[in-house]
Amino acid sequence: MERLIRPRRFAAFTALALVTLACVAQEVTAQRPPTPQSVLAAAKPSDWQALDPQDTLYLQLPAGRVIIALAPQFAPGYVANIKRLVRAGYFNGLAIVRVQDDFVAQWGDPDQHRSLGGAERSIPAEFIVAARDVPFTPLPDPDTYAPEVGFSDGFPAARDPKLGRVWLVHCYGMIGAARADDVDSGNGSELYAVIGQAPRQLDRNDALVGRVVEGMELLSALPRGSGPLGFYARPSERVPIVAARIAADVPPAERVPLEVLRTDTQTFAELVEAERDRRDAWYKVPAGRVGVCNVPLPARIAQKR
Amino acid sequence: MERLIRPRRFAAFTALALVTLACVAQEVTAQRPPTPQSVLAAAKPSDWQALDPQDTLYLQLPAGRVIIALAPQFAPGYVANIKRLVRAGYFNGLAIVRVQDDFVAQWGDPDQHRSLGGAERSIPAEFIVAARDVPFTPLPDPDTYAPEVGFSDGFPAARDPKLGRVWLVHCYGMIGAARADDVDSGNGSELYAVIGQAPRQLDRNDALVGRVVEGMELLSALPRGSGPLGFYARPSERVPIVAARIAADVPPAERVPLEVLRTDTQTFAELVEAERDRRDAWYKVPAGRVGVCNVPLPARIAQKR
Repeated sequence: MERLIRPRRFAAFTALALVTLACVAQEVTAQRPPTPQSVLAAAKPSDWQALDPQDTLYLQLPAGRVIIALAPQFAPGYVANIKRLVRAGYFNGLAIVRVQDDFVAQWGDPDQHRSLGGAERSIPAEFIVAARDVPFTPLPDPDTYAPEVGFSDGFPAARDPKLGRVWLVHCYGMIGAARADDVDSGNGSELYAVIGQAPRQLDRNDALVGRVVEGMELLSALPRGSGPLGFYARPSERVPIVAARIAADVPPAERVPLEVLRTDTQTFAELVEAERDRRDAWYKVPAGRVGVCNVPLPARIAQKR
Repeated sequence: MERLIRPRRFAAFTALALVTLACVAQEVTAQRPPTPQSVLAAAKPSDWQALDPQDTLYLQLPAGRVIIALAPQFAPGYVANIKRLVRAGYFNGLAIVRVQDDFVAQWGDPDQHRSLGGAERSIPAEFIVAARDVPFTPLPDPDTYAPEVGFSDGFPAARDPKLGRVWLVHCYGMIGAARADDVDSGNGSELYAVIGQAPRQLDRNDALVGRVVEGMELLSALPRGSGPLGFYARPSERVPIVAARIAADVPPAERVPLEVLRTDTQTFAELVEAERDRRDAWYKVPAGRVGVCNVPLPARIAQKR
């Protein structure tokens, strides 16, 4: 997906890729080493998993809809509270208040005046979970920040085998909950999306509650705030949140039937291998490695049955 | 710089930070553990180095100026060719043609019609250099992609001690030269900036020719292209390049006197340590590690003498 090619070469590449995909779909896989594209093209229907509408958040911005897969298995209290807030209409009419380049886009109540309704005012820290409670598909390569990294239920994660702990990691597109200095001070009413180099120093320091599956560019391409830490200096700069809704509360016809590639499948293992060992013609020195935040997490619109 | 705090706490934090900086500037460093802010506040004038106007590229976009420090010590042929192209007016009136989310913003001649003037049509690959030819300040922490990472002359880099080779790495804000499949096919007429998670799989596969020192948000916040690979599908979407100039060719009064923190100084070593071991009140689990693309490379406007 990321050849740094010139437009003319690009046209040629596209045509070739389509041919390649077609061949692979017809089980001709022997000649060429697998590429991320060919692996995906050969995925089985059971490799894909539909997003659970009860744990999918639609964030409607003026320019479009951001779709977020929530992670109740990692932050149950936060996710429950976010759903309470959403269902009470808490976020409707609030705003994106901060966009700091190479860091985060953050939203919430700029004035901190709005009632939380029936939601909790604070949620005990949910930064790590017991390893026995979640699946974990490890990556083989070293990581700067954790003893082991990999994927858990479709989310990028890390594991400490000695402590028997797993935690989500702050990759591009992950959604976190802001908090004050007290670890138990967050409640999900102020959320952020990572829009730059993974700020892994935040790992285990705050609750990650999900990830953006579609519409990331609606957050990442926003104007950066001119105030300190990227806060919008003037209220007029803020980007309004038209509405936040849980997908299950939206009429089925208005939902987006997204599926994500399961990370506990052979297809995903092959995708990881193809990313580690890029054999497209452009690559001359395949890395032989891949970082946890460099593995794509594919999504698609569910195919009609 | 990246506390995920609420606006009210933020106001308090800012006031505190200013006090802290003032104290440190007055050599009161004993009480509090150093923070990145306090280390920077205590930097000596000799820790800073002015950008060389002969190797500084101004990319003038409609919304402002992107300032790029070129890296002739790593890509001498490319940098010389880019300067030839700039001085021949090659880039003036061309455009940003591609913005792919979480990857790159890329610019050049959309029609591939413009004459290269006196510039070379191709530059032999400049992807690695001999370790003996460049300085190298290593980081102590493991890296996914390279045996050793660190900094060289202000740029993020990697080193292979066995091979005696050093190369620049694809961190956020790095500038690379597009090429076709042939490793010797690039010439600097089409450049890109990394605007997402460091695509380290590109390391040693293409020439990195510099990094953005100021104005990164003018590239990273551009609308993403709707075409394949993030190319702008319609010519009307493209972002014009008003002009590209070498700083030395600009009247001194119109230059921006930028300085960057030297990466071979004790101050930079202390900054790295403060980033590895964050002791601000917000952090509860300091990482004790830092990635090569997570270390900030500070810049400032030169202070008047």
